[in-house]
This record gives sequence, structure tokens and C-alpha cells, in this order.
Amino acid sequence: MYTEIICIGTELLRGYVDTNSAYISKELADIGIEVNLISNLEDKERILEEFFKKALKRSQIIIITGGLGPTFDDLTRDIMAKVMNLKLVFNKEIMHNIAAHFAKRNLKMPQENEKQAYIIEGAKIIPNLTGTAPGMIIQLKEKDFKSIVIMLPGPPSEMQPMMKKHILPFLKAKYEHKIRKAIIFHTYGLTESVVAEKIRNLVQMEKKLGKLNFGLQAYTSLVDIEISAQGEDEILIDEILLKVKSEIYQCLKDNIYGEKQETLESVAGQLLNKQKLTLAVAESCSGGLIAHKVTDIAGSSVYFKQGVIAYSNEVKINLLGVKEEVLNKFGSVSKEVALSMAQGIKRLAQTDIGLATTGIAGPGGGSLIKPIGLVYVSLASNSREICEEYRFVGKREKIKEQVKNAALNLLRKELMLNRN
Amino acid sequence: MYTEIICIGTELLRGYVDTNSAYISKELADIGIEVNLISNLEDKERILEEFFKKALKRSQIIIITGGLGPTFDDLTRDIMAKVMNLKLVFNKEIMHNIAAHFAKRNLKMPQENEKQAYIIEGAKIIPNLTGTAPGMIIQLKEKDFKSIVIMLPGPPSEMQPMMKKHILPFLKAKYEHKIRKAIIFHTYGLTESVVAEKIRNLVQMEKKLGKLNFGLQAYTSLVDIEISAQGEDEILIDEILLKVKSEIYQCLKDNIYGEKQETLESVAGQLLNKQKLTLAVAESCSGGLIAHKVTDIAGSSVYFKQGVIAYSNEVKINLLGVKEEVLNKFGSVSKEVALSMAQGIKRLAQTDIGLATTGIAGPGGGSLIKPIGLVYVSLASNSREICEEYRFVGKREKIKEQVKNAALNLLRKELMLNRN
Repeated sequence: MYTEIICIGTELLRGYVDTNSAYISKELADIGIEVNLISNLEDKERILEEFFKKALKRSQIIIITGGLGPTFDDLTRDIMAKVMNLKLVFNKEIMHNIAAHFAKRNLKMPQENEKQAYIIEGAKIIPNLTGTAPGMIIQLKEKDFKSIVIMLPGPPSEMQPMMKKHILPFLKAKYEHKIRKAIIFHTYGLTESVVAEKIRNLVQMEKKLGKLNFGLQAYTSLVDIEISAQGEDEILIDEILLKVKSEIYQCLKDNIYGEKQETLESVAGQLLNKQKLTLAVAESCSGGLIAHKVTDIAGSSVYFKQGVIAYSNEVKINLLGVKEEVLNKFGSVSKEVALSMAQGIKRLAQTDIGLATTGIAGPGGGSLIKPIGLVYVSLASNSREICEEYRFVGKREKIKEQVKNAALNLLRKELMLNRN
Repeated sequence: MYTEIICIGTELLRGYVDTNSAYISKELADIGIEVNLISNLEDKERILEEFFKKALKRSQIIIITGGLGPTFDDLTRDIMAKVMNLKLVFNKEIMHNIAAHFAKRNLKMPQENEKQAYIIEGAKIIPNLTGTAPGMIIQLKEKDFKSIVIMLPGPPSEMQPMMKKHILPFLKAKYEHKIRKAIIFHTYGLTESVVAEKIRNLVQMEKKLGKLNFGLQAYTSLVDIEISAQGEDEILIDEILLKVKSEIYQCLKDNIYGEKQETLESVAGQLLNKQKLTLAVAESCSGGLIAHKVTDIAGSSVYFKQGVIAYSNEVKINLLGVKEEVLNKFGSVSKEVALSMAQGIKRLAQTDIGLATTGIAGPGGGSLIKPIGLVYVSLASNSREICEEYRFVGKREKIKEQVKNAALNLLRKELMLNRN
């Protein structure tokens, strides 16, 4: 079976990131459908027409996003109808829904939106509850096309609920005999090639079994490992993956911080919750990124009490109680100040744990003795105080990201100790 | 001319977002090369082989990222050599550089990395200063291939400097006779179809001239407009774009917050800098995201002094000076509390401007009277106080994003007033 995703929009070929295909391919993988090709195409009639023709020849499943909007550069609907030699039919009910969408928001419907009430004949209509463009599933036995064509709007907030509610159940019902299971491990603190070396024996041994696929993906200070198995026998697949899982943990130990959808902040959050501990953060060089990530977790207000972004010495002194002598003697980027900030925020917010960062994110502010990337990450708990020194490389955003990961991993390690 | 980008890595077809093609296509657009196709392919020999063959037939420029790593699933190098019928040659100097890369970090070189010292014969080597895999440019007149094949490593921190330093100058020198210029406008506060309606006359008029391309891209509460012109006569292109620019501003007025690479936070930062004003933020529902974005801007420490993430009533009372009676009477999500937080952080940090948010980000905490998405954004300056009420829809992350945009736009609008 060959499955492809086509994301349409000239902006995707001029610098905008396509996030739709990642979302769709992840959801499809979870129901055992592996995507074989992802393409981004321009909003150009001739290009779309040619590409659609080829896709209809090679793929059993074609999922298209984008180009269903109301504006002049939205061509998907018209060109797919042309290529499939099908008519576009005006649908009163959809027109009514679009009008209602605007009325609800006290807005006048722009004339442009009328275009969205035209549907390819014979298509199953997928309602769009958060926008105006309906989706379509086209599956025509009487025609020459073996493909199922699924068209969805481009905005993720519209496309994602339509995938979840309609497209995935539809595809699951159709292809439920195939089983693909994957396990994903997230690691911190190792480079990609070190991870590869550590699991090399496992990869070579298991490749002989011919049942497993290994993939590595490196991020800023994080490496993910995905291992998938495919087949017809679910019990056998589960057995193999369980065995691999225990071996992966033996290879990588507590460099693994999570599985599946887990993140450093979700894992730390779960541990804080379980241990009924509270957290506050004092951020200098990470500039609010740690608090932002911690508060991305639903329910984080139970354990996260306060953040302070201390971008000036005054804040460090007046609010966090860092002593002026310490600042003068060691400088704001120092082990002493980091420790004092962690203690200070813990005291100020009256939490069980205080987490603090100070460092030089660049591009300015570096010196020979204290170069850009020099960072101190510190943690104060009820029982102890720790400070770690890092020398990160990269641009400002990348250094902030590394500081955030180091701080959340320090928090995780501390909470893991409590667990034992 | 046909140009394509191929990003290789099975993870890209199982849920990981491809950011490389967005970066590369943006950079190419800036030197007048429009990308026509972006594809994501699995790390599978047969698939890569077939795809490379087709690409060599259809494209003048092929840029490939990924699959140059040291691990078992890195196949790009070998398969491109096979398809082009060229040998892989061991390169001592590269081997030396790779060994040095590990030595510098006090690490033992994993055996896996030896693979990266093999280069396709005749290729121009692109040094990789931040990683181990060198890039290659293959351009062979004596062979049948008209394509220039450029291979780069997958990690953005390695690929991007190689693009900037080597690939872009190389391509620019080669294709400098073609000119493409684009202007991008960023808007806040309008939906995509309203933007389209407002610029409809302009689009219809200019399309007749046959020289312009219009594109719209909608984000969470932001819409971007890209207008590009292509041709041989740079003066004519500049003239047309200048005319279009003034018309776009007439259509959309101060809904336009920036152009090109500008963001709400960079524009607000520039205005703060120029007006020599300082800023502090008190965030409840946005959880640090505003501070994070503000501090992403290099040099923000000049105007940004302090952030407080007030995730509990205690912080609002003790630190920001919100009165307990006010909290009890109106609730923490109220106009009164938002205003008091803005005043409080301004006073605490002794800045010219205090910016504050309070709201319900969900998924818990909503009620009939105060539903999820109800948000107050408030600003206190030396001359006045403002509070705006919003009712956002979407998931937690999306609501946080909308709150951040609303707050930064409120700040921008206030600073624009000072300017007049």
C-alpha cells in the first residue's frame, strides 16, 4: 500500500514550515498506516494538475491539505475535480453553515466564501466545525481511480479535529487488518552517534529478525529513538517490542527521560504531582522559556507556583535576595549567583523546589573568561543544593533551548532520586 | 528552471516536523530561486534510488538534507553514488577533521563515524564546522546529468551555516541574472478571508499586469501576505513593488505590524529602544510565553527588566500588590485583577510599562460565566491604563499563543501612539 500526503500552498515553498504532514503522518502511523511520500506544492494550476494525475496513479491513499480556502490562490477543489473529470456542485447546506459561521461572530460574510460551498460530485462531506471550508472524501469505484482522495483545509486548527473525528475512524475501519506498533524513547545528554553506538548490538541482532525498524532523530540536546514493528500477529509484535524495550533501557539507562508523547516538562510535572511537591523558577538567560514549557502542561498550576524572569541585577538583589557583594565578586553569571537565585526563588515563592538559570545567551555579552554559552543551572530543594556548569554552543534561541532542557533534566533527576 | 528540495529521514514520515525545507526555500527565494517541489522520503534504499533517478531527470537544482549521518539508517551518500554511477572515495583530511571534532569535546570517536569520511568522487566538499558529516556539491558536465546535486546533513545547526557560507554564494554566483523580489507583510487582528477581501481589488488589478504573485498564510491570530515579482529588470520590479506596498498599507493600515523577518516582539522591542522605555510583564495564563518571546530578541535586556509568572493568588497579592478584596470580589480572571497586575509589575520593576495577562487557558477551570478562553490583557504606562477582554477558542497552547499575540500587539499599539 502506498500512501501520500500533499500539502498545498506557495508559502510552503517560500519559507513557511509545513506542520500538517507531520501531524497527519503521526496519526496515520498510530493506526498502522505508514506514509511513503510527503510533498509540498505551489498554488499553481499546471503544477497541481500534473502532480494530482501522478498521485492518482501511484497511491492508494492521498491526503491533501490546503487550497480549499476562499481566496484567489485556493485551487485544490477545482483542479482535483478537473483531473478526476467530476463536476463541482453547489451545496445549500454548506452555504448555510458558512453564513452561520460568520453570523455567530457578528461578521459580514465576504463574497469570497461562496466558493467554499462547491463540492466535488459524489464526495462524502466532512464538516468543519472551526472554519468555513468543508473537507471531502472521494472514493469512486465506478471510475478508474483506485485511490481514496481526502481533501482537508490547511489551517491546523481546522484540519486536526476533522482528521480525529472523521478521517482516522474512516481509515481505521477500512484497513484494520494491518498492525504497526511503534515505541519512542526520548533521551537527554547523549549525541546521536553515541546513542547509535550504544544500541548497535541491538540493532544488528534485531535487524536479522527482519521485523524491526530503527530510527534516530536528534534535536537540541535531545535524541529520540523510534522502533517499530509491523505484521499481522499482534501478540508476537507486542512480545518483540517488550523485549526490545527492556534492552533499550539496559543500554541507555536514565538517559531515557520518557516515551511516546512525553516531554521533559511533562515527566517532571508528573513526578512533582506524585510527590506533592511545588516548584518555582528564577530565569535569567532562559528568559521565561522554562516557565512557558512548564505551564504548557494542563494542570501545572497544582505544582507550579511562580516564575521570576530576572533580567536585571536589581531583580536578583531586591526580589531574589542575591547579595550585592556576591554579584560584585563573582559576576551575575556564576555558580554563586545561580545557587543564590535558586534559594531565593524557593524562599520567595515558598515552594519545595527552586530552579534557576543564569548565563550568556549572546550574541552580545561574551568575554574570553565568560564566553557566550557559559550557563549555570541550579536547583535548591528542601534537602540540598546543586549547580551545574555548561558551555553551550549555538545562536541565542538554541542556547535558550539547551538551558531549558538542562534545567528540566536537572529537576527530573532530582525528583527521580526522591522516588528511589 | 526547476528546483527541488528532498529531506530524508523516516522520522519525517512518522510525525516529525521538517523545518529544513522551509529554511532552505526561504534562503533560495531571497536570491531569486523559487523552489518548485519539496519532498520528504523514508530511509529506504529502493525508495531513495527511484526518487533520486526521477529528480535527476526533472530538476536543475536538487538540494538534499539528511541521511549523511554515521548511523545505520543513513543512506543518502551511498545511494546517490550508485544512481550517479560514481565511486565513494575515502578522504583522509575529512577523517582527520572528524577525529578532531571528537577530541575537542574529550570524546572517543565511535566507529560509526568512519563512514562519514567517504566522499562521492569529483564532489566539491563543503566543510561542516559544527558537526561531523561534510556536505557535497556534485556538478558533472561529462556525465548525462544536467542537475546540480547538493547534499547537506540533516541537523539544522549543521546545515544552516553550510547553506549560508557555501551553498548560497555558490548558487548566487551561478544564477545571478534572474531577479525575484518579495515583500512580506504581517497583520494582526483580521481573518484570512477579511484580508483577502480588503486586498481583492489590488490583486485583480495587479494580476492583469501579470508580474505579481500574491500569497496569504494564516496563523494563530496572524495573517501574512507575500507579494513577489520576478523578471530581468530590477528597477521595474522595485517600482512595481513600491507601488503595491503603499496600496497594501492603504488597504490594511495599522493591522500591519511588520514586514519581512519582523515579529510582534521585534517591532515592540525596536519601539521600546527608540523611545528609551522599559518593560516588565506579569503573566498568569500566558505562563512565561510573553517573556520568552521578548527575550528571544538579542539586546532585549536594555528594555526588558523583569517578568513574574503569577500562577497563584499569593503571588498576585504579595508580589504584585493585587488587593485580596479585589480578587475575592471579581475573581482572578477579571478586568480589575488584570489592571492591578499591570500596575503592580510596573511598580515592582520600576519600569515605564507594565503588561499583564490573566485568563483561563484550559482544559480545566472553565465555567458558564467564565469559559475557557476568557482572557484579560492589560497595560499600564506612565500616562494611562488599558484592559482588553478576549474570548479565544482552541486548546491550551493555542490560547496561550493568542494571549501572547494580543498582549504584544497591545504593547505595540501603545508605543505607536507615543510615536505620533
